[in-house]
Amino acid sequence: MSVQALETILHPRSVAVVGASANVYSFGYSFVHHLVEYGFKGPIYPVNPNYPEIMGLKTYPSVRDIPGTVDFAISCVNASQVTGMLEELAEKGVKGVHLYTARFSETGRQDAAELEQAVLKLALDKGIRLIGPNCMGVYYPRVGLSFGFNLPKDSGPVGMISQSGGGASGFVHLASLRGIRFSKVISYGNGLDLTECDYLDYFLQDQETKIILMYVEGVKDGRRFFETLTRATRLKPVIIMKGGRGQAGSRMTFSHTASLAGSFPVWEAMVRQAGAVSADDFDELIDLTVAFRFLPMVQGKRVGVIGGGGGPSVIAAEECEESGLEVIPIPQEMREELKKRGVSIWDWISNPVDLSIVAGSGVTDIDMLHLMGQHPSFDILMANINEWVLITLASDERFQGLNSQITSHINLRNTYSKPYVVIFGERGVITGDHADWHWKVIAKARAELIRSGMATFPTFRRAARALRKVQEYYAGLG
Amino acid sequence: MSVQALETILHPRSVAVVGASANVYSFGYSFVHHLVEYGFKGPIYPVNPNYPEIMGLKTYPSVRDIPGTVDFAISCVNASQVTGMLEELAEKGVKGVHLYTARFSETGRQDAAELEQAVLKLALDKGIRLIGPNCMGVYYPRVGLSFGFNLPKDSGPVGMISQSGGGASGFVHLASLRGIRFSKVISYGNGLDLTECDYLDYFLQDQETKIILMYVEGVKDGRRFFETLTRATRLKPVIIMKGGRGQAGSRMTFSHTASLAGSFPVWEAMVRQAGAVSADDFDELIDLTVAFRFLPMVQGKRVGVIGGGGGPSVIAAEECEESGLEVIPIPQEMREELKKRGVSIWDWISNPVDLSIVAGSGVTDIDMLHLMGQHPSFDILMANINEWVLITLASDERFQGLNSQITSHINLRNTYSKPYVVIFGERGVITGDHADWHWKVIAKARAELIRSGMATFPTFRRAARALRKVQEYYAGLG
Repeated sequence: MSVQALETILHPRSVAVVGASANVYSFGYSFVHHLVEYGFKGPIYPVNPNYPEIMGLKTYPSVRDIPGTVDFAISCVNASQVTGMLEELAEKGVKGVHLYTARFSETGRQDAAELEQAVLKLALDKGIRLIGPNCMGVYYPRVGLSFGFNLPKDSGPVGMISQSGGGASGFVHLASLRGIRFSKVISYGNGLDLTECDYLDYFLQDQETKIILMYVEGVKDGRRFFETLTRATRLKPVIIMKGGRGQAGSRMTFSHTASLAGSFPVWEAMVRQAGAVSADDFDELIDLTVAFRFLPMVQGKRVGVIGGGGGPSVIAAEECEESGLEVIPIPQEMREELKKRGVSIWDWISNPVDLSIVAGSGVTDIDMLHLMGQHPSFDILMANINEWVLITLASDERFQGLNSQITSHINLRNTYSKPYVVIFGERGVITGDHADWHWKVIAKARAELIRSGMATFPTFRRAARALRKVQEYYAGLG
Repeated sequence: MSVQALETILHPRSVAVVGASANVYSFGYSFVHHLVEYGFKGPIYPVNPNYPEIMGLKTYPSVRDIPGTVDFAISCVNASQVTGMLEELAEKGVKGVHLYTARFSETGRQDAAELEQAVLKLALDKGIRLIGPNCMGVYYPRVGLSFGFNLPKDSGPVGMISQSGGGASGFVHLASLRGIRFSKVISYGNGLDLTECDYLDYFLQDQETKIILMYVEGVKDGRRFFETLTRATRLKPVIIMKGGRGQAGSRMTFSHTASLAGSFPVWEAMVRQAGAVSADDFDELIDLTVAFRFLPMVQGKRVGVIGGGGGPSVIAAEECEESGLEVIPIPQEMREELKKRGVSIWDWISNPVDLSIVAGSGVTDIDMLHLMGQHPSFDILMANINEWVLITLASDERFQGLNSQITSHINLRNTYSKPYVVIFGERGVITGDHADWHWKVIAKARAELIRSGMATFPTFRRAARALRKVQEYYAGLG
């Protein structure tokens, strides 16, 4: 029932923003801005008695003044005004309301909690479904709904359900820098009417969504959540990050979304049993999404590595091994092949391949990747771009060659069916530097990789941890 | 004895680059380039029979053709030419030679290992001290010695001893983006003559060095290393990262620098007993350096946190707690003070401070930081800039306000004597974005923070782990 309701809510013919504003510092402005900016096709009705127009859109003194029906509304009014607004919206035939409005049960105050229950009762009476309160609502770029500035306008196969609003919009932005695009993202805050289970029910059957992400602080109904999650994981990968694991975190989840966080070990066991994948933080949530989105099935844990120079190779080996991948020695047949080709270092070369050893030996890192791509002993290939060393050891001329190196990696990835991973650092530009051509070469190389759909990770440790979890996931499907 | 020898080597009156080259893709070019670029004051003598000049510098067919004495030489010739070169350099009165030259014992080959021993014997006979072989040598910007492109030309109080060359130059670059500057950095590779203990002996007495960093794959003499390290840690903080902890890593350390890695648990116990601080990877090495360099003594683990929005606050609490810091509740007197000031959310506000709750309540994050700065219950203050959420939730006008926020944090840091930490993400720019003004605002804000000497960390997790280790270090000094 909630699935059909959500499908309707997510495809509104018209949207009202109640408590809209021309004040660019307010969310009443932001939500109007987003509807315009992301290209919502139907009528947009800002509601506020103090403005004749907002962003060039005719603005209505009250909901009742809106001509025709309103399918979906975004509420930016104060908590005390919500019931009145719902009454008026009901007259306009509204199907769903996103309550950006906050200060309900999460305040820990009796009167606010009572008001929240009155809002729920009224919505149930009127047949209005609620997203929120205390949340950012919907990002669904295909239909022009968004909850943030600077988010991608194009879509992809990743869906997300998030109890946190800032977390969700920030996450969409960060993940987009790694090439991830989204079908729909819903931030649901206190989950007063529609809960995490309703959203999960929706996403598990949603044809636009192939991978489901969740950020959850607490669930309302543990049994239903476990059952829904188990059904979901049979259909598509579900990756979950839990907020509120420890003492201070639990205290915070209550004041954030009125969630009771529960015991984390119990939670972890439940997630594992349901067949979902756990992420420790947003960075890992991104890493796992990249691995599921851009890699073929990971069928084993034996990895062939281009480490970079000597020190980085040692570290690469370490970080792969500590994450549970196997950095196997070069197989004898590969050594024989190198010897046959007249490679001087055929007996010395190692896995990880140390580029400072390889230099001038008659074999390149690209040759080694081809050999490892062909050899059945390697399940995964990982190559370090090592741009942070390159910027210090390569002359300007050689540094410019970074881009052709990228092309080689993309070709290799396209040639072999094995999971192929590139390590490319994330480093913050600082002023002075952002005018520097070195940074532009780095940015161009990174962009090319990411646009090609390459699974790109900032460190070996992060890549290896994600690959290991994904390998375990596929091993468990059996 | 090695201390005096190193002091002499590090202050040469003239430098020869043997095997210099005009080929911009070669290291024979790089080392000449660096002497010019970083402003070495004395004569520079490129040596190569095939060029009349390199970078405008007169180039000599052989060492013997150099007029006058040579104090220091950088060897880029092949391994087979090293003994001949040393004979000629001895005639020129050379004190020290940096052997960039590789392919000695690290190849695992008998003949190469024997050649290495012959090189050592000859150097000892001639009274020449060797840095390397198989290494990048010296970065000492004050005297114009460098082993990399794009490294800072200004100096700072951090010294580094590194078995890896690419690791060292890359590290100097990465650390410089966090505001770290170096006194001297020595990459020593196989450590044939001068070993890690000689360098440590030097740095512990070096007045230009207040913090010592080490990247070590294996040590030649465990007892001497423990004793030297113990002496060093009595004088200044020493932070050590060990390469070659596991099986694949150990295999790699041999082919990299011919090091035998040894047992990692034994190593860790030794490092702890000697009073040094262990870093797991280069990122943590940077984080710990930032903490020692930019923070006053960390005297406790009770932290006051500005978390950002709700989700980020939950995560901040979690990551601090999981790293062993204590995210204490708001003390009662502080609540009373907020109530007295007429702050509507005096009873609801929490630590971490959730900015989405604070908005419009009559108290700001900056007010809260002042209160926590004054209150004796807080040992550490941590504030999240949360630029990745801000870029999605703030309108352009509000986003521009990021810079004035930075000024507030710098003022706060200057007002209170407590360790003050700012969380500011590191994210790779991708093409399209680097022309975007949002990235320039972010880059400017980050640069301002870093130039002010703020201890800036990319995530709460990384900040909290570093702070906890540094707090334990100071607690152990007692």
